[in-house]
Amino acid sequence: MSGKKKYTIGIDFGTESARAVLVDVSNGKLAASSVYQYTHGVITEKLPGSEEELDPDFALQHPKDYINALKRTVPKLMKESQIDSDQIIGIGTAFTGSTILPTTDDGTPLALIEDYADDPQAWPKLWKHHAAQDKANRITQLAVERFETFLDRYGGRINAEWFFPKLWEIFDNSSSVYNAADRIIEASDWIVWQLTGVETRNLCAAGYKALWSKSEGFPLETFFAAMDSDLANVVDKKMKREITPLGEQVGELTEEAAKWMKLKPGIPVSTGILDGHAAVPAATVVEPGKMAIILGTSFVHMILSNKEYRVPGMCGMVEDGIIPGLMGYEAGQAGGGDHFAWFMKNSVPSEYEKEARKRKISLYQLLEEKATELKPAESGLIALDWWNGNRSILVDGDLTGLILGYSLATKPEEIYRAILEATVFGTRKIFETFIASGVPINEIIVTGGGLTKNDLLMYILANVTRMEIKLAECPYTSALGAAMYASVAAGPEKGGYKTIQDASKNMAHLQEKTFVPNNNDKKTYNRLYSEYTLLHDYFGYGHNDAMKRLKNLRTNILEKKNR
Amino acid sequence: MSGKKKYTIGIDFGTESARAVLVDVSNGKLAASSVYQYTHGVITEKLPGSEEELDPDFALQHPKDYINALKRTVPKLMKESQIDSDQIIGIGTAFTGSTILPTTDDGTPLALIEDYADDPQAWPKLWKHHAAQDKANRITQLAVERFETFLDRYGGRINAEWFFPKLWEIFDNSSSVYNAADRIIEASDWIVWQLTGVETRNLCAAGYKALWSKSEGFPLETFFAAMDSDLANVVDKKMKREITPLGEQVGELTEEAAKWMKLKPGIPVSTGILDGHAAVPAATVVEPGKMAIILGTSFVHMILSNKEYRVPGMCGMVEDGIIPGLMGYEAGQAGGGDHFAWFMKNSVPSEYEKEARKRKISLYQLLEEKATELKPAESGLIALDWWNGNRSILVDGDLTGLILGYSLATKPEEIYRAILEATVFGTRKIFETFIASGVPINEIIVTGGGLTKNDLLMYILANVTRMEIKLAECPYTSALGAAMYASVAAGPEKGGYKTIQDASKNMAHLQEKTFVPNNNDKKTYNRLYSEYTLLHDYFGYGHNDAMKRLKNLRTNILEKKNR
Repeated sequence: MSGKKKYTIGIDFGTESARAVLVDVSNGKLAASSVYQYTHGVITEKLPGSEEELDPDFALQHPKDYINALKRTVPKLMKESQIDSDQIIGIGTAFTGSTILPTTDDGTPLALIEDYADDPQAWPKLWKHHAAQDKANRITQLAVERFETFLDRYGGRINAEWFFPKLWEIFDNSSSVYNAADRIIEASDWIVWQLTGVETRNLCAAGYKALWSKSEGFPLETFFAAMDSDLANVVDKKMKREITPLGEQVGELTEEAAKWMKLKPGIPVSTGILDGHAAVPAATVVEPGKMAIILGTSFVHMILSNKEYRVPGMCGMVEDGIIPGLMGYEAGQAGGGDHFAWFMKNSVPSEYEKEARKRKISLYQLLEEKATELKPAESGLIALDWWNGNRSILVDGDLTGLILGYSLATKPEEIYRAILEATVFGTRKIFETFIASGVPINEIIVTGGGLTKNDLLMYILANVTRMEIKLAECPYTSALGAAMYASVAAGPEKGGYKTIQDASKNMAHLQEKTFVPNNNDKKTYNRLYSEYTLLHDYFGYGHNDAMKRLKNLRTNILEKKNR
Repeated sequence: MSGKKKYTIGIDFGTESARAVLVDVSNGKLAASSVYQYTHGVITEKLPGSEEELDPDFALQHPKDYINALKRTVPKLMKESQIDSDQIIGIGTAFTGSTILPTTDDGTPLALIEDYADDPQAWPKLWKHHAAQDKANRITQLAVERFETFLDRYGGRINAEWFFPKLWEIFDNSSSVYNAADRIIEASDWIVWQLTGVETRNLCAAGYKALWSKSEGFPLETFFAAMDSDLANVVDKKMKREITPLGEQVGELTEEAAKWMKLKPGIPVSTGILDGHAAVPAATVVEPGKMAIILGTSFVHMILSNKEYRVPGMCGMVEDGIIPGLMGYEAGQAGGGDHFAWFMKNSVPSEYEKEARKRKISLYQLLEEKATELKPAESGLIALDWWNGNRSILVDGDLTGLILGYSLATKPEEIYRAILEATVFGTRKIFETFIASGVPINEIIVTGGGLTKNDLLMYILANVTRMEIKLAECPYTSALGAAMYASVAAGPEKGGYKTIQDASKNMAHLQEKTFVPNNNDKKTYNRLYSEYTLLHDYFGYGHNDAMKRLKNLRTNILEKKNR
C-alpha cells in the first residue's frame, strides 16, 4: 500500500433515499457525500406496472432502487474527491430494518422474477410496512403462553415491523412466494450479499429484529411449530443459523459490484448493520453510561451497558448488537419529528404563513422563534406525545395524543411548544426508566437530521432531562458509522482500526456547541413533568382506556362507512 | 283608538350594539328593524378623553351610547315602516346584565359629571367587567360561613359579573364615587328611568343578579354588614326595596324621551328585563317543561318549572324571573361560539383558507362542509369544552379545555367537529342535570345569532340530546321579547295582551324546519358522551387538578416575566 491517505465508504439505505459518504479513515472527515432519491420511493398504492391497489398498511420498496443507489452515489464520491480506488480500504453499509425480501438461492429478489412480480408478498417489505399486525399479536401471545425467555428482551411485545411477523405474512398469504423463496433475508444482509457474493446474517438485525441472541440463538423449532407446523424448520430452510458479528470482513467487492460503482474489485466489505445502530459509534457512543438519541420522524434511544437488565418497554436488548463486547439497548418513541410536521401541516393559521413568507423564513423558523419567546409553563398547556402511539415505555400502539389546558387565549406557538415539550417528556420517561432499572446514563448525545438544528428542542431536551446535551458533528451519522465499521473490517494492517472504539476515537466527533440546563427552567419542567407523568400513568396504564375505546369505535364506524 | 294596526317597539341593548324592532302586535311580524353600533363599544383600555390605562379586567360602557341608540334606531323604524306614532301602544327594552352604573337621584350617570368623569368606578360596568372577582369570592365565602339560604339559588357560588361584587368594587375603590352616588342601578332599569322618569327595579335583574327573591327579598342587613359595616344599609341608601314584576307598565314616555325618538309622549313603557331572559317568550317558551337555549359566544339555557328545585350548578333560580307565575331557571356554558371562533382564528391551515377563497365561501362554511362529511366517532377525538372555564354544572372558571385522541392522520375538520360536539356534550350535561334534579324538559328551542344557521351544530344538538331541535323564527328574539312584554304592559284594552302567554301564542313563532335525531347517530353519541362524562368527572371533580395547577403555575410564570 502506498503512503497515500486511506478512505472508507459508508452507504446508508434509508426510507426515501440512500446517502453515501467517503471518509478519511485517519480523522473521519468527509471527503465527499452524495444522496440518491429512490425512483420508486415507498410503494404504498400499486406495484410497479400493476393497476391493483395495495392494502392500506402496505409499504414496499423496489430492489432496483438499492442497486441504483450504489451506481449513482459511489461514482460521484470518487469523482468529487478525485481519490484513487486503491485508497479505499473498506466499504460498509447501513440499512433500515426490519426490511425483508424473499430471494432465490443466488440472492435474486423474487420481485424481479416475472412469475412473482405481480405478488405483493414477493416485494421487499419496508420497516414501516404494517400489514403483519395480527401476526405480531399472535407471536406475542404464543410467547406469553409458552413462557418464552426471549420475550423479556423485547419489552414483552413483538412488533409488527419485525422479521418473523413479516415472514409469517408471506407464508400465510402466498404459498407460491413462500415456497419459491430459498432465502428470506434482511435487506441489510442482502445488500452485502450483492456486494460480495457471500450470504451472511448480521448480528444487529438478527438480534433486534429476528429474536436471536448470542446465548440462546433463535427461538426453538417448537415455537415456530406452534405458529404453524410448516414453519418449524423456517430458520434452517429459509435463513441461516450462523450470525456474523459487527465489523467483520464478510468478503471482497465482486467484479460485478465493482463495475456498478466504478471501483476496483477486491475491496473488503464489512458486516451489514441497521441504520440507527450504525449511528451510535458515529455519535461517539462506544462505552457504557452513554445514550445516543437519534432524532427523526420517530425518536430512537440507544444505550450501552456492561450488564444485562430487564428494562420495561425497551424495544430490544442485544449483546454485541451495537458495539461488540457490550449490551446494546434500544428504546424508542413512536412519534417525534412527525408530531411537529403534523402540527405544521394541520394547525398553523394562514396569518402565520403570511408572516413567514413576508420575512422570508420557513414556517418552522417562525414557530420556533415565537415559541422560544415563551417561558416554560407560560402557555398553561400540557400534552401527551402519543399521536403515533407509544413505543417505549408503554409499548402500546393504540394510545393517542392529548392536549390539555386550552383557553380562548391559547396561541399556535403555545401548542407547538407543548407538543415539543411532550415529546421530550416522553424521552425523559425512557431515560428515567433505564436508570431506575439499573442501567446508568451519564451522558446524552443527539444525532439525526434537521431536528438537531432546532435550538428550542435542544434547549428543552437539556432542561427536561437536566443533562448537558451534546450533538454529533457529522450530519450523516448512519453512513459514517458504516464507514467506521468498514475501517474495522479492513483492520490496522490495511490502515484501518482494530476495534470500533479505536475507530470512534479518531473518526467520530462532537460539535463544540452544547446545550446546558438552567436552574429555573429545570425546576419548572420538573413540575410540568410531574403533570405529564400523572396523565401518562392515568391513560397509559388503563385507569381510563378512552383512547382505545375511541380508536375501536372509530374502526367500527369506518368499516360501516366504507362497506 | 282607530282601527289601525297596533305595534310595539322592542329595543335590545347588547354588548357592542343595540337592535330595535317594530312589531305588529297581532302576529309578531317585524314591520322594521334597525341596528346601532355603539360609538365607544366596550371600553377596555382608556376612559374617553383620558390617557390612563385601565386594569386588564375592566369592561366599561358609555351612557351616551345608550341614549344615542334610542335616537338612531327608533326614528329609522318609523321612517322605514311609515306608521304613525299613535299606532305604537308600548315600548319595551331588554339589556345586558349585570351592567350597573352609579347615578345622582335624578338618574344622571356620575360618568357624565365632570368631577367623576376621570374615575373608572363612575362608569357603567358591563356584564363582562371582571375586576370584582375577589369581591365575588368573598361574598361566596361569607354566604357559606353564614349559611345564607340565597346561596342555593345560585348554584353555590356568586359570580363576579353580578350586582353586589361590582357595587362593592365601587365602594372599596372610590369613596368619592360611592358617596356621590344616590343610586347604583342596573342599566336595564336606568334606561326605563330615562324613558319614563320613573325609577324601578325589575324583578328579572334583581332576582338573577342582585340576590333578591320574592319570598326572601334582598339579603339581610347583617349580611351586608359582614361585607363591610358601612354597607349594612346599602339597599335602602343606594337601591330600592320595591321590585317591579315583568310586563308591568312603569310609566309613560316623557316629553324629552319622545323627542329623542321622534315619537309622541305618553306611550306606555314596560318593566326592564335582561336580554337573555327576554328571548325566552320570543322563542315560544312560556310554559314548564321547555328549555330555551340561546346560542352566542357563550350558551345560556333557560328552563321554566312550576316548582322550586335545587339544581347543581345552575346560575340562578328566580320565581317570576322570566315568566310571571313560573320558576325561571338559568344555566349556562362559559364557552360556546367563542370556542369555534378560537378554532377558526388559531387552527385552520392556510391551505383551507385558499380553498375557501377559491370557492368563494367562508372558512366557517368550508369547515362545516368538511366536518359534515364525517360520521360521529370517525375522528377518534373527544374534547372537554372548557376553553373559558365551566359555568354549569361545575361552576369553575379555572378549568381549561382538552382534546384527546390525536393521531398523525387527524385533520382540522375533525378537531373542529370535536369542539362542536364537546360544546353540545356540555349542553347535555346541563339538560340531564336539570332532569335528574326534578325539573322536566320535554322540548328544546334554540335561538341566537349566526350559530342557529350552523346545520351541523343543530344536527349534533339533536343527536346528542336525543331531542327534536326547534328554532325560533325571529333573528332578534331579545328585542322581540321586549316588544312582547310591552304589549302586555299596554294590555288588552289598548290592543295588547293580558299575559305574556297570550302574547307568545300570537307573536312568537318557530321555524318550520326542525332537526330530528336518527337512531344510529344517537347511539354513537351516547357512547361518546359516556367518554365525555368520564373525563368531565375526572378533571371536573378534582381527581386530577392538573388544569388548576397549570393555570396557577402559568400565573406565577407570567408575574415573574412581567416584573
